[in-house]
Amino acid sequence: MHLFSRLKADASGDWASYVEHQFVHELGTGELPKSSFRHYLVQDYLFLIQFARAYALGIYKSPTPQDMRQSLEGVKAIMDVELDLHLELCASWGMSREDIENAPEAAQTIAYTRFVLEAGMAGDLLDLQVALAPCIIGYAEIGKGLAEKHGQTLDGNPYKRWIEEYSGSTYQNLAAEFGAWIDATAGVYLTEARVPRLRKLFAKASQLEADFWQMGLEAS
Amino acid sequence: MHLFSRLKADASGDWASYVEHQFVHELGTGELPKSSFRHYLVQDYLFLIQFARAYALGIYKSPTPQDMRQSLEGVKAIMDVELDLHLELCASWGMSREDIENAPEAAQTIAYTRFVLEAGMAGDLLDLQVALAPCIIGYAEIGKGLAEKHGQTLDGNPYKRWIEEYSGSTYQNLAAEFGAWIDATAGVYLTEARVPRLRKLFAKASQLEADFWQMGLEAS
Amino acid sequence: MHLFSRLKADASGDWASYVEHQFVHELGTGELPKSSFRHYLVQDYLFLIQFARAYALGIYKSPTPQDMRQSLEGVKAIMDVELDLHLELCASWGMSREDIENAPEAAQTIAYTRFVLEAGMAGDLLDLQVALAPCIIGYAEIGKGLAEKHGQTLDGNPYKRWIEEYSGSTYQNLAAEFGAWIDATAGVYLTEARVPRLRKLFAKASQLEADFWQMGLEAS
Amino acid sequence: MHLFSRLKADASGDWASYVEHQFVHELGTGELPKSSFRHYLVQDYLFLIQFARAYALGIYKSPTPQDMRQSLEGVKAIMDVELDLHLELCASWGMSREDIENAPEAAQTIAYTRFVLEAGMAGDLLDLQVALAPCIIGYAEIGKGLAEKHGQTLDGNPYKRWIEEYSGSTYQNLAAEFGAWIDATAGVYLTEARVPRLRKLFAKASQLEADFWQMGLEAS
Repeated sequence: MHLFSRLKADASGDWASYVEHQFVHELGTGELPKSSFRHYLVQDYLFLIQFARAYALGIYKSPTPQDMRQSLEGVKAIMDVELDLHLELCASWGMSREDIENAPEAAQTIAYTRFVLEAGMAGDLLDLQVALAPCIIGYAEIGKGLAEKHGQTLDGNPYKRWIEEYSGSTYQNLAAEFGAWIDATAGVYLTEARVPRLRKLFAKASQLEADFWQMGLEAS
Repeated sequence: MHLFSRLKADASGDWASYVEHQFVHELGTGELPKSSFRHYLVQDYLFLIQFARAYALGIYKSPTPQDMRQSLEGVKAIMDVELDLHLELCASWGMSREDIENAPEAAQTIAYTRFVLEAGMAGDLLDLQVALAPCIIGYAEIGKGLAEKHGQTLDGNPYKRWIEEYSGSTYQNLAAEFGAWIDATAGVYLTEARVPRLRKLFAKASQLEADFWQMGLEAS
Repeated sequence: MHLFSRLKADASGDWASYVEHQFVHELGTGELPKSSFRHYLVQDYLFLIQFARAYALGIYKSPTPQDMRQSLEGVKAIMDVELDLHLELCASWGMSREDIENAPEAAQTIAYTRFVLEAGMAGDLLDLQVALAPCIIGYAEIGKGLAEKHGQTLDGNPYKRWIEEYSGSTYQNLAAEFGAWIDATAGVYLTEARVPRLRKLFAKASQLEADFWQMGLEAS
Repeated sequence: MHLFSRLKADASGDWASYVEHQFVHELGTGELPKSSFRHYLVQDYLFLIQFARAYALGIYKSPTPQDMRQSLEGVKAIMDVELDLHLELCASWGMSREDIENAPEAAQTIAYTRFVLEAGMAGDLLDLQVALAPCIIGYAEIGKGLAEKHGQTLDGNPYKRWIEEYSGSTYQNLAAEFGAWIDATAGVYLTEARVPRLRKLFAKASQLEADFWQMGLEAS
């Protein structure tokens, strides 16, 4: 994950505001208000639908059949697996499919998802990947970090399942593969002259992720 | 403006939260903190650049040469006139072109503009127009309302020029023409079954406009 | 398939030039020159890659999660099944994956696929579906017609496998489902005022399909 | 025009088939059948409408306000000037606006225009520019070549006006500016690894231009 690491290092302040957000901290300790988590869950479901669209856009924008396949895996992961898992998780928190599908999208959900979709449509596959990266790879970093720090006390933690999902090998591999895919695309499309714009894109996406946590926190 | 009037009536709460926002009220009385206005002005410049892109998207999405011409007028109005007027206005408030072009886009600016661009790209010309309408026609309504209510006290109002611009006949005509253009498109593309989605689009755009004022207000 | 039937009836001349093309006739009798079929097969593979992109665009453009799922089925059908079947079929005709993937796209392949992709991007989901319909539903009609007319003599026909694929229940069901999906979308988005443009789109796509057969025929 | 010159050199065969096409030759000698020219003129009008959309897409896809302005100049040149000039020219050849606007797009017109629009939407601004270049810069090269070779005998040539338009300084400057704009974009976005795909894009666009002349020739 060379390009990702570089962009993360360049945006260290924005990145920290996202992966070390108070919401994340309270997920780990289990202190996060349940109403915050519920609000987050619903918005994250609406978010995933838009992310499936972003991966579908990736298929459309792919310069090679191999890139198309990689994007398709992303669409399938969300539409064939994650959305159902999410509904199950929501059900265990007392929310029905109707509650969720009828919930209005929050401004923070709109801001991040449309920013990604639009950056991807206006730019090339690399722009799309860089806009998606803070979410896809960031969740792996957050999940792993929480599992390492709070692994011994997860049994009493109401957010155990969430932490296990994102620290688990399935998600970790998916994120690692995504990082490798960015590097493959960067191998063809990256120039030094593009870096300032990609850096801005990455930093903005990280800020919008932090705003998303903040939205959850303020819902309590 | 039949479709616009209908959508506005259906979204009356969201519409009021936008056109009767505290920011608008304080523009009229002149009490708006200058720091709020300055922050707004800069973000509005960044907003206009995205709106020029949205009008350009309108050219691309136009089903007829006549629609292409209508969209092109929108691009020209922004790129050949409004951006320069905006820079002049900014200069009179002590901000240089560099200050403005280098300012980071606020989350609220991103949320509204990318929402519009994305709704337009994913849908048809009517979706794009409905997403643009709260801005284009709303500003005419706000400008006219402020001129009517505060017209006698504008001379001492630091925001006189802004109010005159949007209450002036040039902008009023532009907005009226835009409303007629929506109706022409609706004449071909509107079905009753689409109304719930268009209503949602319109209401959401109105909310995002209200958020934009709120951003200005909180910048003081 | 109400909208499809209507559009087909309106474009009866263009439709006949496509589904009753000499290429189709010779597929049925087995008289088609093998060089024509080989050329067709290679171009059809390149065509399918673009159609997978068109279905992916369908996901992006879907107004509901249900539409997203329907589009995704189309992407999967091509990328997870049809492309491999196609390579197998090509192998049985002596062509390797490399031969195929390195073949240049013919002008006729470009014309039809880019026309569909562009109509779908500029318009809405209904435009995309109408542009795709002549291919998806037309192949089912052609396959069924050939099986009915030549079913008793297929054993000696070198194109037996092709005819069986498109006359088989899997493909017939896929096409019927596509027709029902168009009607569902039309139920929300169709107006009488749109019909002339949809008719033009459908007729043009049918002509471009006829050109595609002609390209095959002329390759002998 | 460094990138353009390189791509042209790499696609020398396809380039020659376009700029040295029999249609071009007969324009210069004045021997081109008038029915060929009439057919060409009508299709070129329909072509220009799509090219205005492609330039509008350029505004949408522009990474900087400067790029937006450059694209806007292209839209204006077509929509505010060239389309009217074209109608005038058509009128002098006995064709009315109605004749032209109601003419069906030929397959060759569709192939080239949708190829450009789609390459631009799927890729980045550089892809769009490379797909547009054979038309924009090629016409300048053709016009200049014809004026140099046949300048002394233009008075009796029925295609004098066409040759003068494209050999004139207005068009020559526009094309030179476009070449400089490509280089500016290439300065940020070009990598050696992209060259094979850009070369393919350029060669294909050149072939589709040659097909466009051929369509005219065969219309006699």
